[in-house]
Amino acid sequence: MDTPVTIHPVILCGGSGTRLWPVSRKAKPKPFLPLIGETTLFEQAVGRVAGHDRFAPPMVVAGAQHVDLIEAQIGAGREHRLVVEPMGRNTAPAIALAAALIPDDEILLVCPSDHHIADEAAFRAAALAAAELARDDWLVSFGIAPTHPETGYGYLHRGEALPGGYRIAQFVEKPDLERAKAYLASGEYSWNGGIFAFRAGALLVELAEHRPAMAQRVAQAVAGGRDEGSRFHPAAEIFAAIEGDSIDYAVMENTARAAMVPADMGWSDIGNWAALHDALPRDDAGNSVRGTADLADCRNVMASSDGPRISAVGLDDVCIIVSDGEVLVTTREGAQNVGKLPGAANQ
Amino acid sequence: MDTPVTIHPVILCGGSGTRLWPVSRKAKPKPFLPLIGETTLFEQAVGRVAGHDRFAPPMVVAGAQHVDLIEAQIGAGREHRLVVEPMGRNTAPAIALAAALIPDDEILLVCPSDHHIADEAAFRAAALAAAELARDDWLVSFGIAPTHPETGYGYLHRGEALPGGYRIAQFVEKPDLERAKAYLASGEYSWNGGIFAFRAGALLVELAEHRPAMAQRVAQAVAGGRDEGSRFHPAAEIFAAIEGDSIDYAVMENTARAAMVPADMGWSDIGNWAALHDALPRDDAGNSVRGTADLADCRNVMASSDGPRISAVGLDDVCIIVSDGEVLVTTREGAQNVGKLPGAANQ
Repeated sequence: MDTPVTIHPVILCGGSGTRLWPVSRKAKPKPFLPLIGETTLFEQAVGRVAGHDRFAPPMVVAGAQHVDLIEAQIGAGREHRLVVEPMGRNTAPAIALAAALIPDDEILLVCPSDHHIADEAAFRAAALAAAELARDDWLVSFGIAPTHPETGYGYLHRGEALPGGYRIAQFVEKPDLERAKAYLASGEYSWNGGIFAFRAGALLVELAEHRPAMAQRVAQAVAGGRDEGSRFHPAAEIFAAIEGDSIDYAVMENTARAAMVPADMGWSDIGNWAALHDALPRDDAGNSVRGTADLADCRNVMASSDGPRISAVGLDDVCIIVSDGEVLVTTREGAQNVGKLPGAANQ
Repeated sequence: MDTPVTIHPVILCGGSGTRLWPVSRKAKPKPFLPLIGETTLFEQAVGRVAGHDRFAPPMVVAGAQHVDLIEAQIGAGREHRLVVEPMGRNTAPAIALAAALIPDDEILLVCPSDHHIADEAAFRAAALAAAELARDDWLVSFGIAPTHPETGYGYLHRGEALPGGYRIAQFVEKPDLERAKAYLASGEYSWNGGIFAFRAGALLVELAEHRPAMAQRVAQAVAGGRDEGSRFHPAAEIFAAIEGDSIDYAVMENTARAAMVPADMGWSDIGNWAALHDALPRDDAGNSVRGTADLADCRNVMASSDGPRISAVGLDDVCIIVSDGEVLVTTREGAQNVGKLPGAANQ
């Protein structure tokens, strides 16, 4: 095997979901909350790649509004670089900024910071396999082992075998339930979890081919940018002119060299309260409690309060969240619609 | 018909249920809360018999701890008498105290203050019919028209017809569901709602026959009592020595002259949150809201908050109560068990 290549973790902190309202708020969105355990998802994302010699110090890409949160949570004295996006333009420009700041022959490991990964060793093993493929100019997505027929994610259809992974035969949009069940049964499909490995130069070449205007503006925004300590500010006006797009649409679905590494690592995007409940430890009745709660004759109930006591009787499959003066009660099934509530929508 | 006899409403304020926790608290129990509409159940009990010439000013029987609430809620300048029980001894002594303070030939109309009555005209008509029977020394219970096979109440089995009512053929303890259904189907059974009419002298004679020690101690407690403005304080040590009992056990189930008047008047004892929900106005989906609440895809949900917004998604048959820093979520079915929650039990 060749000399190991340096892997640069690129932690993405974009997006501001509303489905974990009322705990998640615009000013303090999901990555910066201690949803599972005592540390935040962002702290966990940084911690997963810390202290291992194959990983360089992390590069964080985030909006200006979250700089203070990030610098407070990244840990005093931890070497890092923070790329401050003047505004959100989706994942492709964010990743391209990072790629432009990393030596062409080194590897970006793109990690969203709003996901939970229970098995960190499995994550790191998949990351090393992905880096090897990326070194050979494959554009590598982590293929998350599906655990249920989820209709809310995109799927990757596995193609021919590669060393440590597979070609991606097809990208599949969110399926209906029947197709999701068929995918699960076939064993040939993985979830597209938004975790990627790219050689920096390869990613930029592909971007220039499939989104030339975006690639050009990113290069200009970096050339016209400025450093401020560990922060890097791309040129705001140029970056603002970029038409936003996801890395999947801009690159992955267009390249001839899309690959995947299988990753069975207890992944959850914690996309709503029911998903968080699934990722939390539960008692024999399936209940999870954070804060003070008395549950009587309840099954599969999550109760989380930042202060007031929650008392519940007779409930099945319900999430109860008390946070900062708001009280949310949702069925597990209804959890995906929390973002449409007036409280969540009109923050 | 003879000259109309004076009817003395006797409003009972005893008891301190826990099933409407967290709104109902020991210091401010159910009668003194505006559970339905803007007025409290106590205010409604007083108002039902106010301004009608057949009804004398009310006599309220209550514990010392509730005197301030009663005097605040009875309305400035409203003529009344307040009998202050030094401690609770159940309904028989409370009613006997009132009977001892009313002329022997006049009528007590015993009204619990923790019930809701939607049709006040029907209540007054039943009261007048009951008073006529009581004048002839019948001990008269209101027989509430049952609306569902309730297993939480005692039932009255209707016997031979009397003028304006019936003899009570049998008192039936709380039945199981099958028997409750049979009672409802038969049309011969009513709920025992705890509303009574007695001639004062007749009640005291019956009490002396069936509970002679209680009758004697009540007479002594009244003889040794003292007036304080509109308040009457029975002699505390003597009253304390009474062995408490309900009027049903002490008198009604023993007398040969138990009668009932049928009463179909939108009665509810509001015994738990589900019962309150049933007594409240609802929208087309069966939901009732008090305070600020956003309900999405909910049916038969009651949401009541004294401040924080409640947001709910996808719930059926659930009551959500936010009061004074406590959050309660219960199924309608579980509502009868709210009193067993730590919050309710350890106030």
